Amino acid sequence: MSSSRTQVGIVGGGPAGLMLSHLLHLKGIDSVVLECRTRAEVEGTIRAGVLEQNTVDLMVETGLGDRLTREGLEHHGIELRFGGRGHRIAFDELTDGRAVTVYPQHEVLKDLIARRLADGGDIRFGVSDAKVHDHESDRPSITFVDSDGNDQKLECALVAGCDGSRTQTRKLIPEPSIRTDHFRQYPFAWFGILAEAPPSSEELIYANHERGFALISTRTPEVQRHYLQVDPDDSVDNWSDDRIWDELHMRVDGEGAEIKDGRIFQKSILQFRSFVCEPMQHGNLYLAGDAAHTVPPTGAKGMNLAIADVYALAKAMDSFFTSSDRKMLDGYTETVLPRVWRTQHFSWWMSSMLHRLPDDSGFGHRRQLAELDMVTRSVAGRTLIAENYVGTPLI
Amino acid sequence: MSSSRTQVGIVGGGPAGLMLSHLLHLKGIDSVVLECRTRAEVEGTIRAGVLEQNTVDLMVETGLGDRLTREGLEHHGIELRFGGRGHRIAFDELTDGRAVTVYPQHEVLKDLIARRLADGGDIRFGVSDAKVHDHESDRPSITFVDSDGNDQKLECALVAGCDGSRTQTRKLIPEPSIRTDHFRQYPFAWFGILAEAPPSSEELIYANHERGFALISTRTPEVQRHYLQVDPDDSVDNWSDDRIWDELHMRVDGEGAEIKDGRIFQKSILQFRSFVCEPMQHGNLYLAGDAAHTVPPTGAKGMNLAIADVYALAKAMDSFFTSSDRKMLDGYTETVLPRVWRTQHFSWWMSSMLHRLPDDSGFGHRRQLAELDMVTRSVAGRTLIAENYVGTPLI
Repeated sequence: MSSSRTQVGIVGGGPAGLMLSHLLHLKGIDSVVLECRTRAEVEGTIRAGVLEQNTVDLMVETGLGDRLTREGLEHHGIELRFGGRGHRIAFDELTDGRAVTVYPQHEVLKDLIARRLADGGDIRFGVSDAKVHDHESDRPSITFVDSDGNDQKLECALVAGCDGSRTQTRKLIPEPSIRTDHFRQYPFAWFGILAEAPPSSEELIYANHERGFALISTRTPEVQRHYLQVDPDDSVDNWSDDRIWDELHMRVDGEGAEIKDGRIFQKSILQFRSFVCEPMQHGNLYLAGDAAHTVPPTGAKGMNLAIADVYALAKAMDSFFTSSDRKMLDGYTETVLPRVWRTQHFSWWMSSMLHRLPDDSGFGHRRQLAELDMVTRSVAGRTLIAENYVGTPLI
Repeated sequence: MSSSRTQVGIVGGGPAGLMLSHLLHLKGIDSVVLECRTRAEVEGTIRAGVLEQNTVDLMVETGLGDRLTREGLEHHGIELRFGGRGHRIAFDELTDGRAVTVYPQHEVLKDLIARRLADGGDIRFGVSDAKVHDHESDRPSITFVDSDGNDQKLECALVAGCDGSRTQTRKLIPEPSIRTDHFRQYPFAWFGILAEAPPSSEELIYANHERGFALISTRTPEVQRHYLQVDPDDSVDNWSDDRIWDELHMRVDGEGAEIKDGRIFQKSILQFRSFVCEPMQHGNLYLAGDAAHTVPPTGAKGMNLAIADVYALAKAMDSFFTSSDRKMLDGYTETVLPRVWRTQHFSWWMSSMLHRLPDDSGFGHRRQLAELDMVTRSVAGRTLIAENYVGTPLI
């Protein structure tokens, strides 16, 4: 078994792991990223992406902004649609010029990988069987099999668990003695399509309709991404192209909006859930991103929350390596958790306000429309949505 | 049977009926109010009261403000309490100087009755068996037995159903062909006490605690009114004075707050429900206040919503009598219903955010605390609460 050393061993090369490695490098801290997929797989897994202003700012400030600035689509508002009418949440005026940028997650990953490699960063793609050892000691290590099939051992001072929602590292925090998992299943799912069609709208449309929620979004000027609320047990086989377009027209068309049809080339069903594990650390193991929490997609917060985690974690690790002070490391969970929960709440709120609940009496749906009415007619209400949508401060 | 005529026959002498009669009088429209209780009963039924700025302004502007201005207690904020700390919602700065006034409902009724009688108004107390006839024609009438036991008939052009949550008039709107009742039961109740004790706080405290909600409020400098969330099936017999004070201390005491004990002289349990009937009119019958809708007490909106209803109804009736134009009357439900539903939402929101739900997982309570955190740390969030608490425009 070959052995090597680094300061921070990072399990997982998604947004959390790669951004952590990048931020640590800028502070002069060495890390190694272990990723089970190949580089081509990581870069080729098409994922949506709406970047908060914070995330954009951080990428630009840390030298990751070239392509983002060129190719990202700044959105200065969204439309909340109900009662057949659109109600714009104008980020510009409500948040002092902040915005979100539509830039897919796999593009962020390409930029991070290119930058890490250009900076001499150490990313091991295609590794298998990564196992963290002795994370409760001050000499943890990670064993793994590299892409050539050789056994490897990585010794490090700190370990970051950034291995996503199918995480193995989370399991190292003993449950229930130390770790508590908080979970919420939602009684609906999203049916998502990709279609070759012109954009139906310049901005995202979130529609509350008595037939269920619909989301109109865009990938490129030629490719659109739309979603329909469906039952969690529904199947793509039940949905012909005609039925999909009919349903989108019924839920969205009206004053100022008309869906533009096209050729559907991908259909999938996304389940909805919320998850948070507490604490997000144990010994010298620190979780970040989906390894620690999952948000439903309504608020487009998943990747942004991962970035916020590692922003705080990099600072804490820097303080540890610079001054041997464990205080910030020890307080990592306490630092990031309130923001994690507020983001969970925002995602739950957007979901609850916009989706039709299966057991919904007339009272529930009318209350929901009244909530949308109350929120959108008030500058304060629109601001509360806008400031959370564009993102609250990272720490 | 004696017979008399008026323009508007009003069933019910609560806040809705009496204020409608007062507003109509100011527009030169005659009305008769029929109330089953005696004047002493109406004036002696002790009820809480938090008046929105709108309600205060309307009372002052229409000559009902003398005692209110002298004896009402202006409150310029409330405290939302969670995680052992208070978070003030400062109405003054968030709503341009608007406030609420603590002034009990029975005091409002005394002022209304005194004013109506001074203005020569016709209020029949102690009537029984009031029945509306022919409300679908343009010659409706109300028969009743007066307080001396004589059969009476009141002929009128329009009828207002202001007979509260135990309404008989609502039943005249045929269900389900015309009327739909929307109902929501809540899985909690309020245990309320009146105590001879010094005030525990200058402003109302709404406390979210893992043991359940508590509300600290005040009647007079000597009498306090506090509430504890309890199970809807709980009984006052289960609650000794000691247990009540212990529970209040546990749920509220902490940084900046300490409950002051005293002698408890009244205990009662209030059920929680939301109700709205649609439409709020049929033929020449128009419902207002609790006859048409009930809100849970958390937002202190019941009486204010009744006043907002009759403010719109009086305008519509005036338009009808002045110009024989039915348009505003026909549009009454459509005019007031959005505000009714927004108020239902606000009351539901305050209730949902502050009460512990019996089936609440760890996720639910943490999300709730994160919601309180998100709302109270944001000027926009605090403003959204403040502007709804002090009251949105009457129409």
